[in-house]
Amino acid sequence: MHGGNVWQAEQFFGIPVHKLMDFSANINPLGPSPRAIEAVQRALEYIKFYPEPQAETLLKELAKQWSLPQDRLILGNGAAELIYALGRLLTPKRVLLPVPTFSEYAASFAASEQVPILLDRNEDFSLKPEQLYSLLEPEDLLIICNPNNPTGQLVSKDMLLVLVNQAKAKGAWVMLDEAFMDFVYPQQSLLRELSAYPNLIIVRSLTKIYALPGLRLGYLAAAPQIIDELYKNLPPWRVNVLAQVAGLASLQDQIYLSQTLALVNQQRQYLIDGFNAIPGLKALPAAANFILVDCRQAGCTAAAIRDYLAPRGILVRLCDNFQGLDKYFFRVAVRNQEQNHILLTELQQFIASHGK
Amino acid sequence: MHGGNVWQAEQFFGIPVHKLMDFSANINPLGPSPRAIEAVQRALEYIKFYPEPQAETLLKELAKQWSLPQDRLILGNGAAELIYALGRLLTPKRVLLPVPTFSEYAASFAASEQVPILLDRNEDFSLKPEQLYSLLEPEDLLIICNPNNPTGQLVSKDMLLVLVNQAKAKGAWVMLDEAFMDFVYPQQSLLRELSAYPNLIIVRSLTKIYALPGLRLGYLAAAPQIIDELYKNLPPWRVNVLAQVAGLASLQDQIYLSQTLALVNQQRQYLIDGFNAIPGLKALPAAANFILVDCRQAGCTAAAIRDYLAPRGILVRLCDNFQGLDKYFFRVAVRNQEQNHILLTELQQFIASHGK
Repeated sequence: MHGGNVWQAEQFFGIPVHKLMDFSANINPLGPSPRAIEAVQRALEYIKFYPEPQAETLLKELAKQWSLPQDRLILGNGAAELIYALGRLLTPKRVLLPVPTFSEYAASFAASEQVPILLDRNEDFSLKPEQLYSLLEPEDLLIICNPNNPTGQLVSKDMLLVLVNQAKAKGAWVMLDEAFMDFVYPQQSLLRELSAYPNLIIVRSLTKIYALPGLRLGYLAAAPQIIDELYKNLPPWRVNVLAQVAGLASLQDQIYLSQTLALVNQQRQYLIDGFNAIPGLKALPAAANFILVDCRQAGCTAAAIRDYLAPRGILVRLCDNFQGLDKYFFRVAVRNQEQNHILLTELQQFIASHGK
Repeated sequence: MHGGNVWQAEQFFGIPVHKLMDFSANINPLGPSPRAIEAVQRALEYIKFYPEPQAETLLKELAKQWSLPQDRLILGNGAAELIYALGRLLTPKRVLLPVPTFSEYAASFAASEQVPILLDRNEDFSLKPEQLYSLLEPEDLLIICNPNNPTGQLVSKDMLLVLVNQAKAKGAWVMLDEAFMDFVYPQQSLLRELSAYPNLIIVRSLTKIYALPGLRLGYLAAAPQIIDELYKNLPPWRVNVLAQVAGLASLQDQIYLSQTLALVNQQRQYLIDGFNAIPGLKALPAAANFILVDCRQAGCTAAAIRDYLAPRGILVRLCDNFQGLDKYFFRVAVRNQEQNHILLTELQQFIASHGK
């Protein structure tokens, strides 16, 4: 159902996990920061101790980095844990959900009425703030993934601030998922704006940008009352000791972050150009570390492409289980030059022989 | 508030974590199984991949070990995550809670009416099943930690089965926490009996018996309907990849488990005898890997003892924040011969000079 299930792929195709080229999960192609790996190795002797109950040391560092008071931040066992907890806590009257988007939002807010807002394929699924504004009612929660998974669309900071202000005036909440923000446009984050907007909740993953999905690490920033309630609803020790040390080391590795931005920006364009040079494939504009590809004109389904690539050790993400997408879309994470080249070459070959 | 906060101790007393003798957390004194450490080291290259979403491989192994169908088991990011999730799910009318016991139960079921049942200090806090039976009403949840933290009291399997049957007849649930069962009386577990009792829920920690609290790992066994609901309420990927491989390797290390039982049994008696030989200290009978000690007759508080031991790198667990205990109780985990000896020697010295 989700991307990144390399274990299943290993089982199905008999290719060892470390030999797979996983384009199906949107993870930093550099792998973990060397400083994070070193920190984890040093901390192995600590697995016999409980972690800090609320990951206090890491929390302090995060607060410092984003110039936010600590009482506006909470860490979780991946962002997913925090989104689920927020779903139980906020219980908004309605959830406005521009789709296609990450499916865990709907699962997390299952108790609320859900209002999917279908974005237009012909406009590259771009968000229309004025449409959202007109729909907003008191006690609504608007969820925006920015940049959006799986479409790669970015809403500008200025446009979002207007929307958050409008929601505030109407007595509605906005939950912003910035899981992929640091890959391409870190300066578009609203984290530093948080204090001015008590109706704004920002969720962030550290597992994608720092390539630590196996360790689980995410955080949520919001008004102190919300953070307080989350603490009451979540068990202590929920961030394991290795995730804590890896997170801390990663946050301090600015060089790794610059290298990531440079690589992703360059390779993203390389992939987009490559997809668009293959007859029948169309890469949507992407402001993130992944690209949504439309294969409708190629005369084959995304599943056919997946079935061709998978035995060759190349995993892509089918998108037919995203509301608003269909069997002609697949998503591809930006990886390194070598792997991106292999992907494009294999795709070209397949479309040339199997496309229409 | 809880035991095992070695990080705070390090900060307060300037003693590096690895030099602390932590009697305040009830963790296997052998440390992790060598096979678990090896598995974690080998799996470090996997932290850049998502874990199996529901820890499927580990789940299969657990099911095999306990001869339980897989649909009666769910894994969690420590047992705490599962207890909290159960608290949100079951919402019993009342929670019957024999106290003193682990404080997270009350926190997890905060939405239900709580009926604490004060166990009698003069009877070593032993559970009286007939009293519990008379109190049980339909839709109640009875929570029993067996053996109980922090009192070390064990309820026999036969006695428990009668109680679970009675609860079933009344339409009430029983949640059994067997976090410490494998340390002393593994054959007293109700896990193999589970299928016959749809009103029985068993929670188990793997972090204590396998000394992996820093990685987080626990599971819950119950009727398939409850497991189903828990899956819907919990996010995927909640068990990190290192906890999964460490759990799997630990479960397969039977030698380590036998060594644990032998060590804990021997050293538990050594500690009990040692405590009781110190004037004014009384060790309660303990059927677990920890011992509750009463220092009332020694003329000093547990806090005074803690304050003496802590700067010497020895951590014990104060118990005044357990409902039903007071400032004259502290809890001590069974550790190895060398550390247990140091603890007894230091205690003797302190009581001799500061006791009455």
